[in-house]
Amino acid sequence: MHPQGHQGAGWRPAPQQAPDWGAEAIAVGLALANPQLPLSSWVEFPSGRLLFSLPCYSCTAAPKIWLPASGFCVPLITHWPQHPAEDSVPIWIVLRFFHTCLSRAAAEMAASCRIKPLSRVAVCGGTHGNEMSGIYLAKHWLRDPMELQRGSFTVTPFLGNPRAIEKCVRYVGRDLNRTFTTEFLSSAEAEDEPYEVVLAREINQTYGPKGSAQAFDFMFDLHNTTASMGICLIVDSEESLLPMHMCHYIQMHYTRSPCPIYLYKLPGEETYSINSVAKAGLALELGPQPQQVVRADLFTQMRDLIACALDFIELFNKGTVFPAFEIDAYKITGCMDYPRYPDGEISAMVHPKLQDKNFLPLNPRDPIFQTFSGEEILYEGNTTIYPAFINEAAYYEKKVAFAMMEEHTFSIPGLQRE
Amino acid sequence: MHPQGHQGAGWRPAPQQAPDWGAEAIAVGLALANPQLPLSSWVEFPSGRLLFSLPCYSCTAAPKIWLPASGFCVPLITHWPQHPAEDSVPIWIVLRFFHTCLSRAAAEMAASCRIKPLSRVAVCGGTHGNEMSGIYLAKHWLRDPMELQRGSFTVTPFLGNPRAIEKCVRYVGRDLNRTFTTEFLSSAEAEDEPYEVVLAREINQTYGPKGSAQAFDFMFDLHNTTASMGICLIVDSEESLLPMHMCHYIQMHYTRSPCPIYLYKLPGEETYSINSVAKAGLALELGPQPQQVVRADLFTQMRDLIACALDFIELFNKGTVFPAFEIDAYKITGCMDYPRYPDGEISAMVHPKLQDKNFLPLNPRDPIFQTFSGEEILYEGNTTIYPAFINEAAYYEKKVAFAMMEEHTFSIPGLQRE
Repeated sequence: MHPQGHQGAGWRPAPQQAPDWGAEAIAVGLALANPQLPLSSWVEFPSGRLLFSLPCYSCTAAPKIWLPASGFCVPLITHWPQHPAEDSVPIWIVLRFFHTCLSRAAAEMAASCRIKPLSRVAVCGGTHGNEMSGIYLAKHWLRDPMELQRGSFTVTPFLGNPRAIEKCVRYVGRDLNRTFTTEFLSSAEAEDEPYEVVLAREINQTYGPKGSAQAFDFMFDLHNTTASMGICLIVDSEESLLPMHMCHYIQMHYTRSPCPIYLYKLPGEETYSINSVAKAGLALELGPQPQQVVRADLFTQMRDLIACALDFIELFNKGTVFPAFEIDAYKITGCMDYPRYPDGEISAMVHPKLQDKNFLPLNPRDPIFQTFSGEEILYEGNTTIYPAFINEAAYYEKKVAFAMMEEHTFSIPGLQRE
Repeated sequence: MHPQGHQGAGWRPAPQQAPDWGAEAIAVGLALANPQLPLSSWVEFPSGRLLFSLPCYSCTAAPKIWLPASGFCVPLITHWPQHPAEDSVPIWIVLRFFHTCLSRAAAEMAASCRIKPLSRVAVCGGTHGNEMSGIYLAKHWLRDPMELQRGSFTVTPFLGNPRAIEKCVRYVGRDLNRTFTTEFLSSAEAEDEPYEVVLAREINQTYGPKGSAQAFDFMFDLHNTTASMGICLIVDSEESLLPMHMCHYIQMHYTRSPCPIYLYKLPGEETYSINSVAKAGLALELGPQPQQVVRADLFTQMRDLIACALDFIELFNKGTVFPAFEIDAYKITGCMDYPRYPDGEISAMVHPKLQDKNFLPLNPRDPIFQTFSGEEILYEGNTTIYPAFINEAAYYEKKVAFAMMEEHTFSIPGLQRE
C-alpha cells in the first residue's frame, strides 16, 4: 500500500523535503492520546496540523487522515487490509501505533463542521474608489436589488468609500482596506484623522462589530487589479471554512475561467480588510482592468461570480452537506519591492518575461526586473514561487512589485448548517 | 497605357465612385493656366487638390501628377511614348490638353518644400502625470542625456507637469494638454487660476512662444492610453508637413508594430496641445497601459520610436531629400459619449464587441454599448467609422467613450532642408 499506488484514491506525492516521520508519529500520538481531544476537526501539533476530514468529493468515500509534514492523505481504515510494503513502513507505523486512537477520532470526526445558517450578507463595491467593476455593480444593485435576492437570507449592497468613488481615486486619506484592525477600529476619534479611519468605524458599526455575534454573517468585497490576474478569490486563510467551501463551489460551478485562491494573511498578522468586520468574507479580484475604467467582460464575470456564491449560500442555508475536499491555493509569504535609486525612485521595471505571468512558477535565476538602462535583474530566492499582483498600479506606493506566493494543497473539512 | 497596367509603377485603382473627368480637366486647366501659379506643390481646385509630387520612394523615379477626383497617380512625361489605349482616353485628354502647362508646372514643382534645418528639439514626458512610459523615459534621459543626442541638433528632455507627476495624477487643476490656446496663454495672471494655466505660460515661455520665430523647432510629447491602441502617432493635421514626413519615416523604419496616424484637430479648431508651442510636433500615444503603471514592453517601444524620429531629423538636417508620398491617416470627426441616466451617471459600458477594437471599422447597426442590465445599444450613424481611444480612463470625465475617426489617404509633398 505504497502512497504512489493510490494517487487516484486521494494519495498525494510527498513534498520537496523529506518529512521527519519520527517527529510526526510522536506528535500524532501525543495529540490523539489526549483524552481532551476536542471535537473540532483540527489537531495542532508541532509540524503543522493534523486534519480529520470527511469523505471527499474527488477521491475516496472513506474518512482520511492528512499528515501535513509528509503531504500524504491517508484513508482512515479500522481494519488494515494487508501488511504494508516495506517502503511504506513509516505510515504503517503511524497508523498501527495509533490504531485505536485513530478509530475513535475518526468516529468523532465523521460528522462535518456545523455552522449556523447565514441570514445577513453584504456586498461591497468601491472599497477602492477607482476599481470600477464593483462600483458599477453595487450602483446597479442599489438601483435594482432583485438580482441579489435569494430565499433564505438578505443581501445588502453598499458602496465602501463614497468620497473616494466620487473623486475616482483609490482612497482619500489612507487605504480603507488596510484600516479594519483593532488599532483603528478602537482608536479614539481625533480631529485630524484620515477620512477612512472614520469611515472604517462607521462600516464596523453597520456590518460588524468585528468579531461580535451581531456582525453580518458574510461580506463580499469587489476589487479590480491592473495585474493580469484573471479571476482571483481572496480569503484571509485556509482556516476560514465557509469561504473555502464557497471558493470550492465557485471553482466547480464557474468553469469559464480558472479561479485561483489567494490567501492573504501572513502568519500572526491581524486581518485588516473590510470584509473582516463580518463573520466571514470573500474578496473578488478581477483583472487586468485599468483604474477608473469599467470593462463589460469583467463586469459580467463579477456579476456571475456573485450569483454563483449566493447560490452556494442558499444551498448551505437549505441544508446541503458540503463534504470535505482537498484544494490548491496560493499563500502569501512576502512581497518584492522594485529596485530603487538611492533617492528612493524606482530604477527598474517588471521584466517583460515576468509581466502578466501571475500564478506561474518563478524559479531561482529567472529575470524579474529590467532597469531603465536595459539590464536584467534576476530572482535571487532559493525556491520556486508563484508571483501575483505583478505590476499592480496601486502597489507602487506600497513598495510591492509583486506578491510572492507558495502553492499549497489544503484539506478542508466538511461543512453543513447547524 | 491603361492605369491597371501600371500599378507597379505607381498607378492606383480608381476609387468607388466614377470621377467627373470633365470637371477635373477644366479645373486642372484653370489652375495651371493661371500665370500666378505659386511655387507651392499644391494647387487647389473644386474636387480637391492637385499635387505635383517628387519622385516617389516606392514607384517610378519620374515626377507625377495626382488626380484626386480619380485617385490616379499619373507619371508626368513631356514626351508621350505612344498613343494611349481607347479606354484610358480621359486621362489622355487631361494630359494632352494641358501638355504645355503641365510641363512648365512640373519644372516649377520639381523642387520639394523647403524648411530650415532643426536646431532645438524638446522631448516632454509627463504632460499627464500618471502616464508612466514618458515620465520614466524623461527621468532616465535627464539622468543620462547621451542617448538622445545627434550631431546636428540639441535635444532637451523635460517633465511636463511636475506637480501632477509627484501626485501621480493626470493633472492637478485642469488638463495641461488642453491649455495651450491663446485664451490661456495670453490671459492675465490671476490668483485662483489652476496650476496648469501658470505652467502652460511657463512652458510657452521656455519652448515657445507659440507661433513665434523663437520657438523650439520641434517637440515630442509622450503619452499612454488605457485603450488598446498599440502605437499611435498623433499630429494636429495632415497639413503639418514635417511631422507627416516623420510619421512616414517611422512607419517605414519601425516595422515591429503598425503605427497609425491620428489627426486630432477638428476643422477650424485652434491647436491646444503642449507641442503646439513648438514650430512642429508629434505626440506618441502607446497603449494599453493602466495609469500609474510602467510596462517594460511599452517603455522600450517608446524609446525606440523616439530614436527613430531623431534619426529622421538628423537625416533631414544633413540634406536628405524626402520625396512626396501618399499616406493613410485617421482624422477625427467627433466623439461619442456614454449613455447616461438622467442624473448624469453612465448607464452603459463599451460593448464587449467594440472593446479593444481601435482603428477597426465600425459599421451602422454594430453594437457599441451594453447597459448595466445587459441590453445592447447600436451605432446609429450612417457611415463606417474607425473608433479610437475606446474606453480610455481619462476620457470618462470628458464624456468620451471613443473618438470617431474617418480613414483618408493624403498626398504629402516632398520635403528637404533649405
